[in-house]
Amino acid sequence: MEEANRIYLSDKEMPTIWYNIIPDLPRPLDPPLHPGTKEPVTLQDLEPIFPPSLIQQEVSNQRFIDIPGEVLDIYRLWRPSPLYRARRLEKALQTPARIYYKYEGDSPVGSHKPNTAVAQAYYNKKDGTKRLTTETGAGQWGSALSMACHYFNMECTVYMVKVSYQQKPYRRVLMQTWGANVFASPSDNTKAGKNILEKSPDSLGSLGIAISEAIEDAVTTPHSKYSLGSVLNHVLLHQTIIGEEAKLQLEKVGEKYPDIIIGCVGGGSNFGGLLFPFMRDKISGEKNFRAIAVEPKSCSSFLKGKYEYDLGDVAGMTPYLKMYTLGHDFIPPGIHAGGLRYHGMAPLLSLLYNSGLIEAQSYKQTDIFDASMVFMQSEAILPAPESAHAIKSAIEEAKKCKETGEEKVILFNLSGNGYLDLGAYDVYINEGLPEVNHDS
Amino acid sequence: MEEANRIYLSDKEMPTIWYNIIPDLPRPLDPPLHPGTKEPVTLQDLEPIFPPSLIQQEVSNQRFIDIPGEVLDIYRLWRPSPLYRARRLEKALQTPARIYYKYEGDSPVGSHKPNTAVAQAYYNKKDGTKRLTTETGAGQWGSALSMACHYFNMECTVYMVKVSYQQKPYRRVLMQTWGANVFASPSDNTKAGKNILEKSPDSLGSLGIAISEAIEDAVTTPHSKYSLGSVLNHVLLHQTIIGEEAKLQLEKVGEKYPDIIIGCVGGGSNFGGLLFPFMRDKISGEKNFRAIAVEPKSCSSFLKGKYEYDLGDVAGMTPYLKMYTLGHDFIPPGIHAGGLRYHGMAPLLSLLYNSGLIEAQSYKQTDIFDASMVFMQSEAILPAPESAHAIKSAIEEAKKCKETGEEKVILFNLSGNGYLDLGAYDVYINEGLPEVNHDS
Repeated sequence: MEEANRIYLSDKEMPTIWYNIIPDLPRPLDPPLHPGTKEPVTLQDLEPIFPPSLIQQEVSNQRFIDIPGEVLDIYRLWRPSPLYRARRLEKALQTPARIYYKYEGDSPVGSHKPNTAVAQAYYNKKDGTKRLTTETGAGQWGSALSMACHYFNMECTVYMVKVSYQQKPYRRVLMQTWGANVFASPSDNTKAGKNILEKSPDSLGSLGIAISEAIEDAVTTPHSKYSLGSVLNHVLLHQTIIGEEAKLQLEKVGEKYPDIIIGCVGGGSNFGGLLFPFMRDKISGEKNFRAIAVEPKSCSSFLKGKYEYDLGDVAGMTPYLKMYTLGHDFIPPGIHAGGLRYHGMAPLLSLLYNSGLIEAQSYKQTDIFDASMVFMQSEAILPAPESAHAIKSAIEEAKKCKETGEEKVILFNLSGNGYLDLGAYDVYINEGLPEVNHDS
Repeated sequence: MEEANRIYLSDKEMPTIWYNIIPDLPRPLDPPLHPGTKEPVTLQDLEPIFPPSLIQQEVSNQRFIDIPGEVLDIYRLWRPSPLYRARRLEKALQTPARIYYKYEGDSPVGSHKPNTAVAQAYYNKKDGTKRLTTETGAGQWGSALSMACHYFNMECTVYMVKVSYQQKPYRRVLMQTWGANVFASPSDNTKAGKNILEKSPDSLGSLGIAISEAIEDAVTTPHSKYSLGSVLNHVLLHQTIIGEEAKLQLEKVGEKYPDIIIGCVGGGSNFGGLLFPFMRDKISGEKNFRAIAVEPKSCSSFLKGKYEYDLGDVAGMTPYLKMYTLGHDFIPPGIHAGGLRYHGMAPLLSLLYNSGLIEAQSYKQTDIFDASMVFMQSEAILPAPESAHAIKSAIEEAKKCKETGEEKVILFNLSGNGYLDLGAYDVYINEGLPEVNHDS
């Protein structure tokens, strides 16, 4: 085996297909239901919100879907992303395990989000959309969609939760460098926003309100559509470039198949993206491995939620989805891993979890940041607090290998860097993280 | 030629030597003079501040110096750094020029600074130093040295200019994640700091004061030395890994020798690092090209300074160096490219400029940020405001090629990313940059 820390693919080795897991699922997905009638939604029901191409992808049964050339061209600005062998972390842990991580933090916005943002912008453009709207919390998803719209010459309007807009200006500015219009939500652009502002002029907003504003804006403005950064089938589809690359990279250094594959989960897109190309081999019986989804203890959809039909948003503008959910009115505590503060879980991952094909773990915020520091001081990359959930699990599994002496191969997704989250690290180092109630 | 956007070297292809330009200079360097006697400094004069190994390197006549294995091991966490072909920028400019940039922004602190920080920490450790002190403005250099000290298990104390400590907390936190002690300067740790605080309790500090504090701390504390992030010969030596890699990368894609090589200059280390391995061929007469050093219009050591002996700091604790200088008491305007706000220029670059081997250009701050946006919206990397000076020059040279139809090869150094400088972009986009007096 080559003694490399980083395993690269050349531009030419980059996969040119996404993997659609739908035809390989152990049983069919339950259909989304209309929020009004609770009948299965028709494709037409979704057309005011999404363009026809993406609606088709959402329900496609085609196993491999060609990545359009224009999407590949933009991917090549930062992809293929590197796979790292975490040699210094292994040494620090004195583990016989071999730890690998796929690093999505070198993308233009510092996370995996552009993999689907670029694809969604492309298909919208193709279908005649001239303007996309979305919501964003801390700004990871909003900045990804802003970039994507720039490259396809579309307008982009982002409703950013007001408290983040005020307290975390950096990602707001990043969206603006890409030319996006960013509004603090609640805004007076929409009825939904105005209603809130009438009742609570000082409202700091929420992701639920911002989603309502973004959808209302899209459906009431000509040539506008709405774009979502996780949860849906087509979003996870676009993220499978991560896992397809990782497979090639492990082969390239002659590594055996992973024994454990780990990712943090909020809506589920980064984990699904890494996992599905491997899960194909597990479902077919060709390979076996453990797949671990890692949640915050304070927002554990898998471990504390129910597998049932629920709404994707607070206001009930989305269809009902069959998923693990804490309830669409669940308000998670204000933990620093903002990207994991979602009440539901992607229907695709929910089905796999329900079928026993993946397992779940949850950890407390302080343990996550402790693990992040161990990683950072070994590997010299500052992780996003979200991604640090995957690190914590990988470290725990590697420690078990130390006990048993097993040379397991552990692969996790480092879905984003934490350089724009240094405010959270400041609290962790200099003030101490507050206690979070985990009984909610 | 291969149609790649990014040109990588494998771990094994990474150069294992630094290039020392001293023996190849067109004439000998003028010696540093003692700040008290104005006689040439002896090596002993420098020993309270620097370790013997680095003092030897500062005056070495050895053309190639082996990079120690322990330094290479840490370099490999992020090196070799990628060379990019700026295809989208070329297209945006409609230029026949082929534009390449070496990207140092994927390092653990987002710039080229760790190349010398790691080396300096290594030699200090070898020579028995247990603790390093330094100063930092916005924090680029301080975070690099903090990381380096962590890997060699040494303490690190950083005096950070108070106004940055208060207003730019992110890099302060980054230093702390590496375990460094960071003090707002002026502090009450040192006589120099106390003197200032007595006279001006509300002093917001300056780089000059911070240097005085860091040196005083080093010379008055057992087993402590001081570390400098630019200007000196050994610092530029360590940065030549940048240019050695770039040469291999251009060869790898079959590109001809560059016609123009560009870098921004503050103290001069990133430009020297890219340039010197090429300059070797120019001095020998084997190759010819234009070398362009780019300065802020408001702090132009080359274009507005004098070539004479001057102090490196305000308080006169450093030797006199023969260099282009605006005067050691020059206080540059508060431009956003903080890393370029230095009154002097590396003696090595100063000699080359004086010998006609390099030329200089300067640009206004607003033009720099305009150029940065053109680059970012093409290439999807947000540049540090310092590095954007090199971009501005590269764009201007590429535009000339459009006029003349010449297919020149332009190479510049993108020495750092701007994700922790989004505050400056916020001012640029949302408030407008203030007018800067360029007659100072």
